[in-house]
Amino acid sequence: MSLTTHQVDHTILETYPPDSLPPDQIHSLLTQIKDYQSTHGSLLKVIDSEIPHSVHLQPVSVSVFPTVFPRRVFHEAIDELQLAYNELYGKIAEDKEWLYAVTGPLRKTEPLVDALWCVYEEVQRQRRKVQYIEQNVHAGLFRSDYMLHVLSDSDNDDDEDWIQSLCLKQVEFNSYSCAGGCHADKVADMHRFLALRGVYNCPSIDEKQDMRILPSSLPLNNTIHGIASLLVLAHKRYGSTPYNSAASHTAVLMVVQPNNFNIADERPIEYALWNWADDNPIPTYRIEWQDVLHRTQLTETGELLFFPPESGGRTPVEISVIYHRAGYEPQEYSDEIKGKDIRIRLELSRAIKCPSILGHITTIKKVQQALTVPGTLGRWLTSDKADRIRGTFVEIYSLNEFDFSEKIHDEKLTENYILKPASLEGGGHNIYGSDIPSILQTLLENEKSRAYILMQKIRSPQNIYGMLMSSSRGVVVDEVVSELGVFGGCIWEKNESSSGLDMIENRVVGWSFKSKERSLDEMSVVKGFGCFDTPLLVD
Amino acid sequence: MSLTTHQVDHTILETYPPDSLPPDQIHSLLTQIKDYQSTHGSLLKVIDSEIPHSVHLQPVSVSVFPTVFPRRVFHEAIDELQLAYNELYGKIAEDKEWLYAVTGPLRKTEPLVDALWCVYEEVQRQRRKVQYIEQNVHAGLFRSDYMLHVLSDSDNDDDEDWIQSLCLKQVEFNSYSCAGGCHADKVADMHRFLALRGVYNCPSIDEKQDMRILPSSLPLNNTIHGIASLLVLAHKRYGSTPYNSAASHTAVLMVVQPNNFNIADERPIEYALWNWADDNPIPTYRIEWQDVLHRTQLTETGELLFFPPESGGRTPVEISVIYHRAGYEPQEYSDEIKGKDIRIRLELSRAIKCPSILGHITTIKKVQQALTVPGTLGRWLTSDKADRIRGTFVEIYSLNEFDFSEKIHDEKLTENYILKPASLEGGGHNIYGSDIPSILQTLLENEKSRAYILMQKIRSPQNIYGMLMSSSRGVVVDEVVSELGVFGGCIWEKNESSSGLDMIENRVVGWSFKSKERSLDEMSVVKGFGCFDTPLLVD
Repeated sequence: MSLTTHQVDHTILETYPPDSLPPDQIHSLLTQIKDYQSTHGSLLKVIDSEIPHSVHLQPVSVSVFPTVFPRRVFHEAIDELQLAYNELYGKIAEDKEWLYAVTGPLRKTEPLVDALWCVYEEVQRQRRKVQYIEQNVHAGLFRSDYMLHVLSDSDNDDDEDWIQSLCLKQVEFNSYSCAGGCHADKVADMHRFLALRGVYNCPSIDEKQDMRILPSSLPLNNTIHGIASLLVLAHKRYGSTPYNSAASHTAVLMVVQPNNFNIADERPIEYALWNWADDNPIPTYRIEWQDVLHRTQLTETGELLFFPPESGGRTPVEISVIYHRAGYEPQEYSDEIKGKDIRIRLELSRAIKCPSILGHITTIKKVQQALTVPGTLGRWLTSDKADRIRGTFVEIYSLNEFDFSEKIHDEKLTENYILKPASLEGGGHNIYGSDIPSILQTLLENEKSRAYILMQKIRSPQNIYGMLMSSSRGVVVDEVVSELGVFGGCIWEKNESSSGLDMIENRVVGWSFKSKERSLDEMSVVKGFGCFDTPLLVD
Repeated sequence: MSLTTHQVDHTILETYPPDSLPPDQIHSLLTQIKDYQSTHGSLLKVIDSEIPHSVHLQPVSVSVFPTVFPRRVFHEAIDELQLAYNELYGKIAEDKEWLYAVTGPLRKTEPLVDALWCVYEEVQRQRRKVQYIEQNVHAGLFRSDYMLHVLSDSDNDDDEDWIQSLCLKQVEFNSYSCAGGCHADKVADMHRFLALRGVYNCPSIDEKQDMRILPSSLPLNNTIHGIASLLVLAHKRYGSTPYNSAASHTAVLMVVQPNNFNIADERPIEYALWNWADDNPIPTYRIEWQDVLHRTQLTETGELLFFPPESGGRTPVEISVIYHRAGYEPQEYSDEIKGKDIRIRLELSRAIKCPSILGHITTIKKVQQALTVPGTLGRWLTSDKADRIRGTFVEIYSLNEFDFSEKIHDEKLTENYILKPASLEGGGHNIYGSDIPSILQTLLENEKSRAYILMQKIRSPQNIYGMLMSSSRGVVVDEVVSELGVFGGCIWEKNESSSGLDMIENRVVGWSFKSKERSLDEMSVVKGFGCFDTPLLVD
């Protein structure tokens, strides 16, 4: 069996990755991974280690071997689905009525949802008073996350066509502050380098079973460039000449959380913009969320001026694009730090927002659930696109719209569903397995019930093994489950047509791939469960 | 005053770097430096932090601001001196008689010198028995270190022509396992990026004294590529087709010390070679010194075969070039690890050595001293080259060839000289200041005296200030002293002519620049004294 030909029979599931490598080969492999990560910034800051003149870092969790993934499915996500998803979410972001009907009811119980709608309403109120025209161009950097799903219940051990039995199901769609792109880019480079370097060659198991992974089996990942390219297009759309005569130039503003130990997922985008072209750097500044009010100024004509620390408070730059990498946690909108005022100022400005406040609201999980209601997608998409997207949906129920007692028994709930907060992204707050029935009962008995959705569990294929390495869990060889995230980027102009917008740019800007042990519920990289990975594409 | 024009009057000494930056600008600057280093591998492993699945890292010591350095002198070192130095040390490496006359007497007291000559002699003995021809092509990667020296004693505070009064004096010449090139490359990139980014703009001091540093004032540093390019040339000279039919391909072998916390100064060279060209990677492997005997094999026809861990002991590669980054400490030649056998095997092979054992011996400080003896340079160089090189010498005395009692009084010894071990490189074993007279007395009274040289202290210019940051010393603004290292690379073929060699390649491959507080004796980066820096070139 060889992986070099892209022709892989299903026996790969039994022999990959090799679990009996000689100790010196394992040692060499782990050392090469740590050293590659150390020299390429594939690192996290060690929490609480930063002092003014130093900081400690450690490698981010990664897979040791790339993990098997069907080529057909990988390309389907990238080539067929993402542009339709970009279009869908762009249009939802301009469909305020629908968005409010779906998410407005969450305001009573969900502080973040309420804060975002408060910001929206206050911005609308203030706009009526100002002299300048609203910025109608909006940008989006999205990430659609999928897992493999087994269509039938048959045991794929005996099924030679197991790859054919797999399809993509969406875990979640993120439209705000999507992370992981920079790490994914560097880890894919690493696996490709290690493959080029030959460290995955495993001749020791059995001469007839020589294994080689060629770099060509590992897809290229240029997500850092891709994300930057979308911001460059938005910046150019705004223009390089400031409207405000006090400003020296226009610039992208990346709004970030303070004390982030994960700067490795932010800084490379900033560097890519400054180094965009030798004679054409795209000036990019970072600002921490809590500094927005005293480091920026909104002019009467709507320009957002930013005063970089090195300007000595004298010469501002005018912000062309606001790239949000903060403002997704309820406490960021607290009165203490005037969080709503921060977001209102940013939103009111004529800078192009990536994304707008409505674009942000589309990321709420309740939206994902509402889209599964039959007939809904047709509101924005042609039927072919709607069909394609619908194919990635699992069943998702809203607690207050569904009679569980009749349809789902406790055992099925435990085995086949996940309970997720309707207002949050990410897996950190989900409820799994045997915790579900009792919590569900409590939820159904009080008003908070609408704050959760019940999502059908994706049926991941068995017998895909991986070798993972994380600073918290060590090196583990076990059955794994992978998640493919596809990064989409788009720029549109709002209009009064029935579609609500003119799409100016619509592109796939990259992908991420993470794997975790099958026995774990969460994919969290920060907790050391999820590991950045590269798909080893097989046919 | 502006640094943008390359016209800098001497008042820069009083105002650079600014010592009264606002706290938020300092905070932003330090954060940007730490983040840049963290994401570009400008790091050291924290000692004893490495475990199989993780490691901690911290930023290497760097200057916060680039440090002022005369442009004329910088170019003199690179454009005028290095090629002559390369030629000189190549020729010395083929002048065994002279080299033995100078360094042979150290064998009695200096274990490292003795070990190297033992290896040489044993290799000569064994070569007489073997069937194959000696490899006559040798490579060198050198680093010549200089400091600025004030020609006159006048106080440069009042001297507008202070730059004219400065010249280069050589601190030491290294011909073996020269370090610092990768760090220097990345730190120069960082300072150039920060300058592009505008963080050195200092408008706050005084509007008339706006300071800007343009990237064009900071020289480009491509040392990683430069070092790799020399190894590529040597590799091509050897050939990409193995002589040995069992070998799959030819490859560069980088011999390294185990558990090196400074892999950031080694790995980038390996990556540059593998990524040399898309369709033409130069295979490069690392081997730890103590693994050489069991991971390599010397064939009867002289090929050095290396068995990479991932080959499962089956398929060797044939080594084209041995790049030495280990084997410079006496204990590496101990009987316990069969250190001499390690070096003998490497030296006996037909691989091109970078450098050969004689090339290694030229790095001994006693050689540097012997070259200062009038008339010596003429043995290898034309008079114009000899004059140029001699201009970089300070007085250096060998203890057993000089009558100190007459010529140098204790006070002068303390103030104007440094006592250095004749057999070692680097500053870690030097004796400074008031320690000199008593130790010198002891040395003169016993046989060990020949193991030291007495070197005139370089008279560094005063009033050059810097801002340095290291994890051990924090952020310091103080008078600084800088050291410029110029990396040279050459390949030559030994012949029987009077010059001893045909020079095949002779080039400058890069530079490093380090600064330390003036009050410190040592430039050690590892101890947090020396900080990687970039010269801010001024006219």
